[in-house]
Amino acid sequence: MKERLMTPGPADVPPETLLELAKPVFHHRTKEFRAILMAVTEGLKDVFRTKNDVFIFTSSGTGAMEASVSNLLAPGDKALCVRGGKFGERWGELAERFGAKAINLDVEWGRAAEPAAIEAALAKDPDIAAVYVTLCETSTGVATDVEAIGKVVAKTNACLVVDGISGVGAMPMKTDAWGVDLLVVGSQKALLLPPGLAFLSVSPKAWARIEKAPRRAYYFDLIAAREALADEDTPYTPANTLVAALRKSLDLLRKEGLEAVWARHARTAAATRAAVVAMRLRVYAAAPADALTAVVLPEGIDAEAARGLLRKKYGVAVAGGQEKLKGKIIRIGHLGYLDTLDTLGAIAALELVLAEMGVNVPLGAGVAAAQKVLLGK
Amino acid sequence: MKERLMTPGPADVPPETLLELAKPVFHHRTKEFRAILMAVTEGLKDVFRTKNDVFIFTSSGTGAMEASVSNLLAPGDKALCVRGGKFGERWGELAERFGAKAINLDVEWGRAAEPAAIEAALAKDPDIAAVYVTLCETSTGVATDVEAIGKVVAKTNACLVVDGISGVGAMPMKTDAWGVDLLVVGSQKALLLPPGLAFLSVSPKAWARIEKAPRRAYYFDLIAAREALADEDTPYTPANTLVAALRKSLDLLRKEGLEAVWARHARTAAATRAAVVAMRLRVYAAAPADALTAVVLPEGIDAEAARGLLRKKYGVAVAGGQEKLKGKIIRIGHLGYLDTLDTLGAIAALELVLAEMGVNVPLGAGVAAAQKVLLGK
Repeated sequence: MKERLMTPGPADVPPETLLELAKPVFHHRTKEFRAILMAVTEGLKDVFRTKNDVFIFTSSGTGAMEASVSNLLAPGDKALCVRGGKFGERWGELAERFGAKAINLDVEWGRAAEPAAIEAALAKDPDIAAVYVTLCETSTGVATDVEAIGKVVAKTNACLVVDGISGVGAMPMKTDAWGVDLLVVGSQKALLLPPGLAFLSVSPKAWARIEKAPRRAYYFDLIAAREALADEDTPYTPANTLVAALRKSLDLLRKEGLEAVWARHARTAAATRAAVVAMRLRVYAAAPADALTAVVLPEGIDAEAARGLLRKKYGVAVAGGQEKLKGKIIRIGHLGYLDTLDTLGAIAALELVLAEMGVNVPLGAGVAAAQKVLLGK
Repeated sequence: MKERLMTPGPADVPPETLLELAKPVFHHRTKEFRAILMAVTEGLKDVFRTKNDVFIFTSSGTGAMEASVSNLLAPGDKALCVRGGKFGERWGELAERFGAKAINLDVEWGRAAEPAAIEAALAKDPDIAAVYVTLCETSTGVATDVEAIGKVVAKTNACLVVDGISGVGAMPMKTDAWGVDLLVVGSQKALLLPPGLAFLSVSPKAWARIEKAPRRAYYFDLIAAREALADEDTPYTPANTLVAALRKSLDLLRKEGLEAVWARHARTAAATRAAVVAMRLRVYAAAPADALTAVVLPEGIDAEAARGLLRKKYGVAVAGGQEKLKGKIIRIGHLGYLDTLDTLGAIAALELVLAEMGVNVPLGAGVAAAQKVLLGK
């Protein structure tokens, strides 16, 4: 069975990058690796649209989320955590674990945070140290308007911290233009790499807070990371073969052009959403992201069973729902090494699976709706 | 130029394992990956000679070192940190960063910690919570007698924490028999994998402390890791392609037999030490480890220049000295996918480089001495 990884991360990786990973291991304290590390760091700055410092951690994205809490906040600092899904909740958990006072701004799952609500919360509590949001909430498929929130936060002393783990690369993120002080990104989503690396950009406004905060991190210590990077090094042994492979993936993204990459994700996501509607299903997110589409399956249809059939019969791996959405939705990723044919095929396969499960689905209707979007009609 | 990675980590990885890393990426929340995760966890227990819980972190070894401080110690707890090199010093730094009271037991670089000194320190301070030691101090090439220290610590309420990052796999480590409560291991040394994973075993005695300590870790939270592993899962996205490749490397180690692997490292290290003496050089460590050999070069010979020539002319990558040993020693690794020929060749290449640098070295003497060891003479 030919397998297609269409989960919202880990995502499929191009063969050129996979072959890099099969090359012999090398030492990281060499001229050659220093050149790779600096080239990759510059390449990430291009993707993040930033002139801020960018650091590479050997960890999952959660490690860089932790770094943006443990380094930035002093115990007792107020953190406004916008929570509209599993990953927004993680901001609240991290803030609490590191002794901050988490002020949770809860958003109904499936809906996006209102910039006005954040503005009101900041006005009410002018000593909020940082605002934590999620660019693409992977558990619900919702996109957050970071640009608008950035305008609100920039007027205050608070730092804006964005979990861009699944969003960056798949949808526009203009770190400097939008006033994002800390941006967290993961390797295994739109950046065309397996899991194992996390990235973090740090603005001068964030550095001012970090330098004043007590130094509580060690593995994720940003001051140590900055000192090491000034020597073209990392504080601890990096996953250097992943970093070398990332150079290849960044080359591929650069060749395609970042705007073209964003447009590709937008087109595939729009085609998928049109297909979902034509199949008489519902897109879960009111403000959908382009990294994935969360699809609500009909009442009485077990989404986990549908997901199992999709994989077993058609080789299409999609994700299920998390926590309260388990068994209710499937999440189709548009990330990574996927093309139009993969998406059209997956839509056709979903039609077949639903038909096999007894849903009265108009065969071909989803594909036709997607085709119309692709033709720009 | 054919390159041979003979640094004390990252070490060379067998082609079978490298090819695993070139396989398509897959999702980690699948039946298939759960099976891999559990098989690898069991395989690690075999290598560590333990029935304790074993966890896999996506991080460098330092991440697991942090986990064994941040989870185990409450602020103000006393930690006896044995420091005889750069990595011993890291224990002291970690203890301080996490608010423990570090009691540093300094050992002269190149010498091993005396179990009697640890016994005396524990007798003097009966409320020491944990003793932190290093199985193989990679900066000096010194081996610590963990078995003897284990007997001392087992009689107290303190936990014994061992940095086995570069030692485990290369030299005997019997976690349960020796009373090691927390064992930290890295992927890129004797375990035949690139950097990116760290491992940690946790004894019941350690769990009792961890459960009482305030919960301060998040990414490295051991309680979350234990809960996830009970569901055959990890709390955060693991570097799953590295974990899958590790299964292959553990298979290779199992096929060779762990005692045979230890014996192979011991043999190569003994041959290298004999060669060093025959070349009229000095082994830096008074109690040398089998993972690497630190070689003191003659006065007036820049070790960094010798290292550069070894790599440039003969394709042999060895490490230099760290901190106060920079320019004075080279460190030859015996870890990873290396065989007898690699070691004999590297010895011959070192003779050539020294001769080229004007050292009066008896050509072939090092090789002959190594051969005698290999013949068991």
